Amino acid sequence: MSATARIEVKFNECDPMGIMWHGNYIKYFEEGREAFGKAWHFDFMDIYNKGFSVPIVNVNCDYKKPLTYRDVALVETIYRKTPAAKIIFDYVIRKESNHELICKGSTTQVFVHRDNMKLSLVIPDFFAEWMAQKKAK
Amino acid sequence: MSATARIEVKFNECDPMGIMWHGNYIKYFEEGREAFGKAWHFDFMDIYNKGFSVPIVNVNCDYKKPLTYRDVALVETIYRKTPAAKIIFDYVIRKESNHELICKGSTTQVFVHRDNMKLSLVIPDFFAEWMAQKKAK
Amino acid sequence: MSATARIEVKFNECDPMGIMWHGNYIKYFEEGREAFGKAWHFDFMDIYNKGFSVPIVNVNCDYKKPLTYRDVALVETIYRKTPAAKIIFDYVIRKESNHELICKGSTTQVFVHRDNMKLSLVIPDFFAEWMAQKKAK
Amino acid sequence: MSATARIEVKFNECDPMGIMWHGNYIKYFEEGREAFGKAWHFDFMDIYNKGFSVPIVNVNCDYKKPLTYRDVALVETIYRKTPAAKIIFDYVIRKESNHELICKGSTTQVFVHRDNMKLSLVIPDFFAEWMAQKKAK
Repeated sequence: MSATARIEVKFNECDPMGIMWHGNYIKYFEEGREAFGKAWHFDFMDIYNKGFSVPIVNVNCDYKKPLTYRDVALVETIYRKTPAAKIIFDYVIRKESNHELICKGSTTQVFVHRDNMKLSLVIPDFFAEWMAQKKAK
Repeated sequence: MSATARIEVKFNECDPMGIMWHGNYIKYFEEGREAFGKAWHFDFMDIYNKGFSVPIVNVNCDYKKPLTYRDVALVETIYRKTPAAKIIFDYVIRKESNHELICKGSTTQVFVHRDNMKLSLVIPDFFAEWMAQKKAK
Repeated sequence: MSATARIEVKFNECDPMGIMWHGNYIKYFEEGREAFGKAWHFDFMDIYNKGFSVPIVNVNCDYKKPLTYRDVALVETIYRKTPAAKIIFDYVIRKESNHELICKGSTTQVFVHRDNMKLSLVIPDFFAEWMAQKKAK
Repeated sequence: MSATARIEVKFNECDPMGIMWHGNYIKYFEEGREAFGKAWHFDFMDIYNKGFSVPIVNVNCDYKKPLTYRDVALVETIYRKTPAAKIIFDYVIRKESNHELICKGSTTQVFVHRDNMKLSLVIPDFFAEWMAQKKAK
């Protein structure tokens, strides 16, 4: 399961070296998750309304090549299967013009019960159902 | 009534021209308001707890000279007296090293009742009291 | 002459009030200028290569209604005719879903000779030509 | 070798969950590196002037607890010794009020020759000297 977001690099995202400032890739990962959610009917607001929040507990990013102003980034967001009560996404960002690999990264989210702010050690039912539906396809 | 915040320009705030990206001054204005609030016991959270929010309805900024990475900005935030039910701040940003004028700006905030989200056409009592106290000094 | 950019409000652009932080509209104006440039073959990099930079000397924004996470903003960017050696854009941002007016703003840019960083008091020839071409259409 | 930066969380850094948006920690890491540079006379501009750039090739961050508006973060930035031609910093962010652990992270930078943009596989002389000086103390 994956989805790809297409993002044009803005002037205000670039630094004095003329390249996209490295911290901005975290925004692109977030935009990648949004695209994934739309493609796979996986809505973070639904999770929230079901009584959970899914805070990010890890971000990792390996930078290979820079992006510059007006480059178009293709942010592929891939759902990583895991038996743990976690949501892990892998990201592969390529430059649209030549498909050069720009960076690879991942984010890990956990399920927290909104009522008591405690970590859920098991996968919530509604999420297990969502996964089962997807596997069936 | 005024207060001055001292802010060092960060690498990630500068653009490919090597200068602070113009939109980041709005962040400096916000940091200026925070400094004003601390100096004059004017707490936006208090306003909120008293049942009002004070959304910004206008921002204006005149840019005179650029700031570059590692420059230190002195953000003077000045309360502008007005009979209207508004909070208006003027900002004068100078470079610490040579006191050169960098920019001048202003923000206008209005009082909105949090319960019905309606604009308050009169100055709320608690705010009139705060002003009266300041004048007395 | 105008062009419209379509921008979806990101989670990371919204503040603890649940609305888009007011400073982020300056980014939307920049994205509006990019869309205008594409539509009207008005390239800021061309201006730069012709020996000029066009720094922003004024930003103004009147906020009418907030945008929230996932709202889609339509940023209309309108070229304002002026005999002065300036580039002035007006912006009208509306919410796509109901065409509600969100904010109105403007930016003013001047022409600066890159070789000596001096302000150009006259409209550079290449820019006058671009304008003449557009009027002819 | 370490240094600590003290940073107050700004309103515009917080998200609709009321906590600092996770991507902003990358800015805090950068501010931590600046503080380290000042404390240990380790200047990224010097490196640049010696003919190298030191791009970030990896960022990693483990989030433990959130920061909220007006919390003060203490960003401890620790130089990690390595025989590789890399600059690795570890970061430990704590909340000033109660010294609670907020997050742990790291950044890895490599040396790139600015003239040909090639990776340096050995530690540049000037940098080896800087390290030797520090060890001697």
